[in-house]
Amino acid sequence: MTTTFNQPLGGNDMPRFGGPATMMRLPAAESAEGLDACFIGIPMDIGTSNRSGTRLGPRQIRDESRMIRPYNMATRAAPFEALQVADLGDVPINTFDLKKSVKIIEAFYGEVLKHDVIPLTLGGDHTLTWPILKAMRDKHGPVALIHIDAHSDINETMFGEEVAHGCPFRRAWEDGCLLNDKVFQIGLRGSGYAAEDFDWGRDKGWTVIQAEECWWKSLTPLMAEIRAKIGDAPVYLTYDIDSLDPAFAPGTGTVEVGGLTTWQALEVVRGCAGLNLVGGDLVEVSPPYDPSGNTALIGANLLYEMLCALPGVPRKVAG
Amino acid sequence: MTTTFNQPLGGNDMPRFGGPATMMRLPAAESAEGLDACFIGIPMDIGTSNRSGTRLGPRQIRDESRMIRPYNMATRAAPFEALQVADLGDVPINTFDLKKSVKIIEAFYGEVLKHDVIPLTLGGDHTLTWPILKAMRDKHGPVALIHIDAHSDINETMFGEEVAHGCPFRRAWEDGCLLNDKVFQIGLRGSGYAAEDFDWGRDKGWTVIQAEECWWKSLTPLMAEIRAKIGDAPVYLTYDIDSLDPAFAPGTGTVEVGGLTTWQALEVVRGCAGLNLVGGDLVEVSPPYDPSGNTALIGANLLYEMLCALPGVPRKVAG
Amino acid sequence: MTTTFNQPLGGNDMPRFGGPATMMRLPAAESAEGLDACFIGIPMDIGTSNRSGTRLGPRQIRDESRMIRPYNMATRAAPFEALQVADLGDVPINTFDLKKSVKIIEAFYGEVLKHDVIPLTLGGDHTLTWPILKAMRDKHGPVALIHIDAHSDINETMFGEEVAHGCPFRRAWEDGCLLNDKVFQIGLRGSGYAAEDFDWGRDKGWTVIQAEECWWKSLTPLMAEIRAKIGDAPVYLTYDIDSLDPAFAPGTGTVEVGGLTTWQALEVVRGCAGLNLVGGDLVEVSPPYDPSGNTALIGANLLYEMLCALPGVPRKVAG
Amino acid sequence: MTTTFNQPLGGNDMPRFGGPATMMRLPAAESAEGLDACFIGIPMDIGTSNRSGTRLGPRQIRDESRMIRPYNMATRAAPFEALQVADLGDVPINTFDLKKSVKIIEAFYGEVLKHDVIPLTLGGDHTLTWPILKAMRDKHGPVALIHIDAHSDINETMFGEEVAHGCPFRRAWEDGCLLNDKVFQIGLRGSGYAAEDFDWGRDKGWTVIQAEECWWKSLTPLMAEIRAKIGDAPVYLTYDIDSLDPAFAPGTGTVEVGGLTTWQALEVVRGCAGLNLVGGDLVEVSPPYDPSGNTALIGANLLYEMLCALPGVPRKVAG
Amino acid sequence: MTTTFNQPLGGNDMPRFGGPATMMRLPAAESAEGLDACFIGIPMDIGTSNRSGTRLGPRQIRDESRMIRPYNMATRAAPFEALQVADLGDVPINTFDLKKSVKIIEAFYGEVLKHDVIPLTLGGDHTLTWPILKAMRDKHGPVALIHIDAHSDINETMFGEEVAHGCPFRRAWEDGCLLNDKVFQIGLRGSGYAAEDFDWGRDKGWTVIQAEECWWKSLTPLMAEIRAKIGDAPVYLTYDIDSLDPAFAPGTGTVEVGGLTTWQALEVVRGCAGLNLVGGDLVEVSPPYDPSGNTALIGANLLYEMLCALPGVPRKVAG
Amino acid sequence: MTTTFNQPLGGNDMPRFGGPATMMRLPAAESAEGLDACFIGIPMDIGTSNRSGTRLGPRQIRDESRMIRPYNMATRAAPFEALQVADLGDVPINTFDLKKSVKIIEAFYGEVLKHDVIPLTLGGDHTLTWPILKAMRDKHGPVALIHIDAHSDINETMFGEEVAHGCPFRRAWEDGCLLNDKVFQIGLRGSGYAAEDFDWGRDKGWTVIQAEECWWKSLTPLMAEIRAKIGDAPVYLTYDIDSLDPAFAPGTGTVEVGGLTTWQALEVVRGCAGLNLVGGDLVEVSPPYDPSGNTALIGANLLYEMLCALPGVPRKVAG
Repeated sequence: MTTTFNQPLGGNDMPRFGGPATMMRLPAAESAEGLDACFIGIPMDIGTSNRSGTRLGPRQIRDESRMIRPYNMATRAAPFEALQVADLGDVPINTFDLKKSVKIIEAFYGEVLKHDVIPLTLGGDHTLTWPILKAMRDKHGPVALIHIDAHSDINETMFGEEVAHGCPFRRAWEDGCLLNDKVFQIGLRGSGYAAEDFDWGRDKGWTVIQAEECWWKSLTPLMAEIRAKIGDAPVYLTYDIDSLDPAFAPGTGTVEVGGLTTWQALEVVRGCAGLNLVGGDLVEVSPPYDPSGNTALIGANLLYEMLCALPGVPRKVAG
Repeated sequence: MTTTFNQPLGGNDMPRFGGPATMMRLPAAESAEGLDACFIGIPMDIGTSNRSGTRLGPRQIRDESRMIRPYNMATRAAPFEALQVADLGDVPINTFDLKKSVKIIEAFYGEVLKHDVIPLTLGGDHTLTWPILKAMRDKHGPVALIHIDAHSDINETMFGEEVAHGCPFRRAWEDGCLLNDKVFQIGLRGSGYAAEDFDWGRDKGWTVIQAEECWWKSLTPLMAEIRAKIGDAPVYLTYDIDSLDPAFAPGTGTVEVGGLTTWQALEVVRGCAGLNLVGGDLVEVSPPYDPSGNTALIGANLLYEMLCALPGVPRKVAG
Repeated sequence: MTTTFNQPLGGNDMPRFGGPATMMRLPAAESAEGLDACFIGIPMDIGTSNRSGTRLGPRQIRDESRMIRPYNMATRAAPFEALQVADLGDVPINTFDLKKSVKIIEAFYGEVLKHDVIPLTLGGDHTLTWPILKAMRDKHGPVALIHIDAHSDINETMFGEEVAHGCPFRRAWEDGCLLNDKVFQIGLRGSGYAAEDFDWGRDKGWTVIQAEECWWKSLTPLMAEIRAKIGDAPVYLTYDIDSLDPAFAPGTGTVEVGGLTTWQALEVVRGCAGLNLVGGDLVEVSPPYDPSGNTALIGANLLYEMLCALPGVPRKVAG
Repeated sequence: MTTTFNQPLGGNDMPRFGGPATMMRLPAAESAEGLDACFIGIPMDIGTSNRSGTRLGPRQIRDESRMIRPYNMATRAAPFEALQVADLGDVPINTFDLKKSVKIIEAFYGEVLKHDVIPLTLGGDHTLTWPILKAMRDKHGPVALIHIDAHSDINETMFGEEVAHGCPFRRAWEDGCLLNDKVFQIGLRGSGYAAEDFDWGRDKGWTVIQAEECWWKSLTPLMAEIRAKIGDAPVYLTYDIDSLDPAFAPGTGTVEVGGLTTWQALEVVRGCAGLNLVGGDLVEVSPPYDPSGNTALIGANLLYEMLCALPGVPRKVAG
Repeated sequence: MTTTFNQPLGGNDMPRFGGPATMMRLPAAESAEGLDACFIGIPMDIGTSNRSGTRLGPRQIRDESRMIRPYNMATRAAPFEALQVADLGDVPINTFDLKKSVKIIEAFYGEVLKHDVIPLTLGGDHTLTWPILKAMRDKHGPVALIHIDAHSDINETMFGEEVAHGCPFRRAWEDGCLLNDKVFQIGLRGSGYAAEDFDWGRDKGWTVIQAEECWWKSLTPLMAEIRAKIGDAPVYLTYDIDSLDPAFAPGTGTVEVGGLTTWQALEVVRGCAGLNLVGGDLVEVSPPYDPSGNTALIGANLLYEMLCALPGVPRKVAG
Repeated sequence: MTTTFNQPLGGNDMPRFGGPATMMRLPAAESAEGLDACFIGIPMDIGTSNRSGTRLGPRQIRDESRMIRPYNMATRAAPFEALQVADLGDVPINTFDLKKSVKIIEAFYGEVLKHDVIPLTLGGDHTLTWPILKAMRDKHGPVALIHIDAHSDINETMFGEEVAHGCPFRRAWEDGCLLNDKVFQIGLRGSGYAAEDFDWGRDKGWTVIQAEECWWKSLTPLMAEIRAKIGDAPVYLTYDIDSLDPAFAPGTGTVEVGGLTTWQALEVVRGCAGLNLVGGDLVEVSPPYDPSGNTALIGANLLYEMLCALPGVPRKVAG
C-alpha cells in the first residue's frame, strides 16, 4: 500500500513568489480528519495592549512561509515523510468582541481535537492560548507548558478585564489546564508593576527563567533539563515572538529590550523533540511593524521547527 | 479687563520638532471649564474591520500638528483671538471591550458637555461617533449631521454585532440623535453587499452624495446648499479620513479607490463656517500605514480648519 | 433549477483580515471548466527595466482584495449573480528565463481558453500581455485593444532583446493579434528616445492619447467614442498601473510624472461595459515600493471593476 | 565640423539601475567651462525648521533620475541636441554652520557664473536660493522670479535668525536681487502667523497666487500671463517641492495640505519655455520621508523639464 | 507625613497608546524645583555629519516610552518609590545656529542645576554633551565619564569647526570638565582617519575599550572594574545609541558595523548602580531611519535603566 | 619619485552626504590599467528565486559607503597608502537574459584581469560568482574558495535551469575553477530538499561548516585553520550577505533564520589577511527590503574590510 503525504509545493514546480498563500504552500483542508498535524490561523489583535496589527499575523506568516523547503538541514528531520499535514485556514473570530472570540476559539479547537491531530497555531495575539489550552485540557487533561515570552502573561486583570493578552496563563491555571510542576517560562524581562509579575508563577511551582539568565549562552542544556522534568506528559509549546530581542523580531507590539536570539529560539524548539507535544502556537507577529516580512518569516520557520519536533517525525541518518 | 487666550506654542519660541506633543502645542487642560473649544483624543481601533492601528491616531495627529500656526492664510480666520482652546487629553477607553468603551466615551462627553464647550475629537475608529452623538443629543437635542466618508456606516450589524465602526449612524438614528432631513453623507463609494448600503439613509430622508458625483468639481456650491438646508440647527461634523482618496490619505484601514481630494476636504470644512457647529471629529487615521506622518498631518489640519469654522471665530479683513 | 454561483467569502463570515488569500476570497479552482470568468496570477518581474518587484504583485493584489464586497455601489453591477468566477492560481513561469516564460504563459492561456471563460490576469510585468494576446488571437482572431499605460511598450527591442516589458505591443502587432483600427493607447507620457516612441502606433492606425490630453477632465466621453469605434469586436483590456500618477499608485517600477487619476481609471474600466470583453489584465504592481498595500488594493479594485464590466453582468435598478 | 554633445547614458547601453549616479547619468564635469547648462547639488538641511533630511536630496534625485530619457514626449524638446550639459557635482557646504554655508554657495556660483552657463540646482533646503540669487544679480542684475512654493519664505527672521529656509526671498529683496514687478509666487497656503505672511510681497509689487486660486484648473493660462509680464528679462525659477500637495510629493519637511498637482507643476515649468531663463532650482526633497524614491523622481523630472525649457533648446516638429 | 512621588500613568488607568506623550507618561514640570531627577529633551540634529533626523529623537523616545512600567524586573529597582521625577520638556535650541544652541543648552542646564536634581537627557545629536558637561563642571567640578559610543568624538575639528557631534569630548577636555583618569570610552570601532582617532584619549589617561574587545562576552566584569576605579567621584554617563550594532539600533545616523548588543548596554547601565551619578544622556536616535519606533524604545529603556541606577533608588528584596 | 594613491574623498572636504556616489567616494576609472585593486558593480537580480531587488544593490552599497574613512581602526590597515584603487563602475548586463548576462560578466572580468588587479565586486545576485570564477581560473588556474552563505548554492538546476543564483558553485566545480580541498562553505543552514544539499560539496572534498557550528563563538580560530589549509594558493572570497542572520542584514531576498553575526563576518574577512586573495565579492543586498540602507552599509564595510585584507596592505604599528 502506498500512502502519499501532502507535500509543500516546491520551488521547481512553481516559483517561490507564486502559488497558494497557505502555510508552506501546503494543501488547504476543510477538516482535520485524516491529518496528523495541521496549521490554523487566528487573525486577532483585540487583546493587545500596546501596538496592534497582529490580526494580520497569520496572513503574513503564511505568505513568507513560501521559502521553507521540506527537509530540515540542521536536525535532518523530514516531517512530510511520515505525517499528513495541511493548512486548516483561519478561525472566524468576532473581531468586535474579545470575550466571544475566546469562546469561538475554544469551540473550534474542540472540534479539531475530535480528530487525532496536533494543531500548530499562527497568531494572533496571546489571548488565544487560553481557549486553546482549555480545549487541550478537555482532550488530554492538564498539560505541561513550555512558554517562551518577554512577559509572564499572568495578570489577574488588565484594565479590569480578565480576557486580554496579558492574562492567558492566569486563566489557564484557574481552569486547571496546567501541570504546575511542569510549567516553564523562558525569556521574561523588562519593567513591571511589582516583583509579583514574575513570582506569581514561581509560587505555583512554575519554573521562571528570566532573560538575563539566558544571555551569553546556549539553551540546549536547559532544554535537556526541561525534557527530563516533563518526561512523557503531554506538552503544549507557546512561543511569543516578543521573547526575541527586537533586533531579531522587530514586528511585534509589546517590545522589551534585551531578549533572546534566534539561535536560542531554534535551540528551544528543536529541544522539544522527544517530548509528547500535543500542540503549539507562534503568536504576536504584527506585520505593520516589519514591512520587510522578516519577523513573519522567522515565525514561519519556528512553526516549521515545531512540526519537525513532533512525535513520529523521522530523522535522516547523516551520510 | 484683559483676557489672554491660550496660544499654540510658536516656532520662534521652540523649534517645531520640540515642545509638548499636545494638539498644536496648546496647553493641556484637566477639565473643559472655561474653555470655548477643546481637542479630545480617543485612542481606539477595536471597532475596525480591516486593518487596525487607529488606536495610535490621536498620538500621531498631535505629533504632526506641531506645524500648524495660529492664523488661517486662506480664510483669514484667527481662532485664538476669540476662543479659549486647550487639549483635554485622551478618553481612557477599555481597549479589551468595545461595548464598555462606548459607554466610557458617552459618559466622558456627557461630563465635558456640562460646560459650554465645543469638542473636536481626534480618532480612533468611527465607532466613537455614536456615543458622542448621544451626548450631543442629551445637550442639544437631535442634531444635523455632515458626514464625509467612503462608507455609509449604517450597517444593521457587523459579524452580528451592533457596535462596530460600520454601524454608528444606524445606532445614532435608532437613538434619535439626528435631524433626518438635515443629514448629509458625502463621498460614499466602493463595493458593498447590496444597493441598500447607501439607500437606507435615503429612505430616512438623508441626502447621500456618492463620490462619483463629487469628481471633477469644487464642493463649495454643495456646501452652500447644505448650509441653506441646515439653517441654524445645531450641527455635528464627522470626518472620516478614508473619504479621501488613498493618494491623499494612505494611512487608514478600509481603503476605497476613487475618493475625494484634500481640496474638497478643505472646501467642505471651510464651508461649515456660518453653521451652528456643536462638535466635530476626525477619525480613522492609522499611523502604521503611513510612517511619513502625512495622513495624520492632514487630519490635524482638518481639525484646525474645524476650529477655524466654529461660531465666534473672527476673520481678518484683507489688507 | 437553482444554480449557485461562487461568492466571495463575506466579512460577516470571516473577518476581512482572515480567510484564504485568493482573489476576493473566492474559491480556488484547478481548471477553467465551468467558469465564466477567472482570475489568474503571473508572478513575474524579469521583464522589467528599472525597479523590479512585480513578481510579488499577484500575491499582494490577492491579499488586499480581501476588502472587496460583491456588489458595485457605483454601477450597480452584481457580477456574482450571473457569472461563475474562481481563482485559478498562478502560472508557473520560469523565473530564470524570460523567453521560456513567455512560452509557458502562451501555453497556459491556450489551455484555459479551451473553455469559454474570460481570464482576468494579475501581473506581473507587462511582458505577459504578449503571450496572452497570442492565445486570444488563436481563439478569437485579432482583437481590439484598450491599453492604458504611461508607456507605449512598442520598442523594437530593449538592450537588443525582443522580449521585455517595453515591447509586447510591437510583438503582438507583428504576430497579427490586433485590429489596428481598434487599438487605443491612453495615458502615454514622459521622456523617450524619439518622437517615434508614440508615433509608431499612430502610423499603424492606432489611436494614441497622451496623458496631457487627459488632464483636467473626465474620460467618460472618450470611452463613449471608443465603444462606438470598437462596436462588437472582441476586446482585450490591458491596464498598466503606472498609467496612474505616482500619487495614486506609488508601488510600481517605471514611474512617470503627470499621470492619470483613479477617477479616470474607474471611468475607463467602467466605460468598457457594453463591449465584448474577452480578457483583461492589471500589470506592474510592485509591492516593495508600496508597503502600505494601497497600490495593490487599487489594482484589485480595477480587476473587480473589469469583472463588473464583463458581458452578461446584471445591473440592479436604482430604487 | 561635428560637435558632439554629452548624452545621458542610455538604457540600451547600461541597465537603468546601473551606471553612474550622476544626474540623468550624464558625464560629470570638474568645471563649467564649455557647458551651456549644468546640474549642481547642494546637500543641505540645516536651514530647515521642521523635518530635516534634505541633505540627502541631491543624492536621491540623481539616483532616481536614471529613468529619464533624452527626448521630451510632451513638448518635443530635445535638449541634448543643442546644449552641452554636465553634472558639476556638489557644493561643499559647511554642514555645521549655516551662515558660512551661504557664503560658500555664493562663492561657488560666482565661480560657475564666470562661464556662460545656466545652473540648475538640486537641493537641499530653500535657504540656498538666496546666495544663488546674489550670484545671479552679480552677473545679470536683478532678475525676474518665478517661485512655486507652499510658503512665501519672506520671514524677517526665524527664531531670531536672518538665515533660514523661511527667509531667502526677504533677504534677496533686501539685497536688490529681484525685479519686484516681475516676481510671482504660486501655490502659497496653509497656516501662518498673520496675514502679512503673504501680503508682504504684495506690498512690494509681487504677484502672489495662493493655492486656492489654482485649484481645479490648468495653470497654462497663468503662465501665458506671466510670460507676457516678464518679457525678455532674465528669469530665475525656484521650485519648492512642497508646493505640491503631499499626495504628489510626500517626501518633504514642511508639509501643507491642499497643494498643487504634478500636472500643474509640469504646466508651470513647461510654461517657462520662451523666457530668458538664467537659472533654476528644485529644493526641499527629503528622502527619509519617501523611501519609494518617487518624490525625488518627480523632482528629477521637474529639473529635466527646466532643462527642456531653456533658451536654445530645439523642439521637433510633430510628424 | 506622607509624601507622594510622581508616578508614571499606568496602563490600567489609560491604555498605553493614549495619555500624555511625556517621558514614561510622567507629569510635566516647568522647573526642576523639588525634583530629584528629571528628563529633558534636546531636539537637535544640526551637529550631525552623515544622516540627520535626531531632532525628532526626543519626541519619539517619549512616545515609545509609554510601554515602561515603574518597577525593574531585573534589578528590582523601584525608582518612583524614593525619587521625585518629572519631565521638564525640551530645551529651545536655535536650530539655525549650532554655536548659539550650545550656549542655550549650557545656560539651560546651569539653571536646572541650581536645584539638586539629576538630569537625564533625551537627544539629539552628541554635540549636546559638551555644554551639559560644562554645566556639570560648574556645579560638581570635573567629573568621571562613562562614554559608550561607536566613535571617540574627540576630533580637533570637523570641516574646520570646533562644534560638531564628532568633537564634544575634545572640547570638554579642553574646558577642564573631565577627571582624565576616570574617563572610559566603550564600543569604539569602524574606520577612521588615523590611529590617533582612538589613541588621543589614551594619551590623556583615558581608558579606551574598542568594540572588538567587547565581543562575545558580558561587560559586567568591566563595569565592576570601572566602579572600582571611579570610586565616589561624580560621574556622568553618556550613551550614544550608535554604540549598539545596527541590528539592535538601526535608527541612527553614523552607523558602524560590529557594535555592542542590548544585553551589553543593559549590563553597562545597570553596572553604574552604586556610582555617584550626577547626570546622563541618551543621544543620536534618528526616528526617520527606524519607523518601527524600536530604536527609540530601546533608548527610552536605557534612560529608564539610568534612572534605576541613580543614587537613592531602593531595590526590593527577592521574595 | 612621489606616487600619489587615490584617496577616498574626505568628510572635511565634502560633507559625507554629498560628493560622488562611487564606492567610498573614490575616483571613477574607465579601465583597470594601473590599478592594484578595483570595485566593480554588477546590477543584477534576474537570477534570484524568492524576493528580487538586488539589481539595485551596487547603487545602494556605493551610496552608503560614503561613511567609510581610509584607516581601519581595528586592524590598523591603511590600504590607500600602498594600493592604487578606483571604482570601475558597473558591468552592463543584459537584464532580460540571464544566460547572456553570465557571458557578459565573464568577458568583462576577462578584460579586467588582463591587468594585474584584484577586483572586488558589488552584487547583484549570487549567479555572478560563476562567471567571475571562470575568469579567475583563466588567469590563476583553479582557486581556493572561501564561501560565506546561508545556502550551499550547488543545485544541479533550479526550475530546470543551470544558471540561477542557487547553482554557481556546482557550475564552477564542473568548470574546474576550484581547488576542491581548499573550498570552505561557512554559515549554511535552514531547510532544503534533502541532506545532499550540503553533503554534495563534502563529497567533493569541500569543508562545509553549518551555521549551528558557528553559534556562540568567535570564528577567528576557524580562520586560522583555513589559512593553514590554503597556504599560498590563490583565493577567492565570496560573501553572501544572507549568511548573516536577518537581524543583522534584513535587506536580502532568501532569508534563513539563525545566521551569523556581523562580529563573525568581520572576523572572517579580517581573517583572510595573509592569504593570497585574488578577488572577492559581496552579493545579495536587496535595497527595497531595507530602506534604512543599513544592510548596504554593512555590505560596504565588508568590501572595505576585503580591501584591507589584500596582499600588500600595510598595517600601522600601535603607538
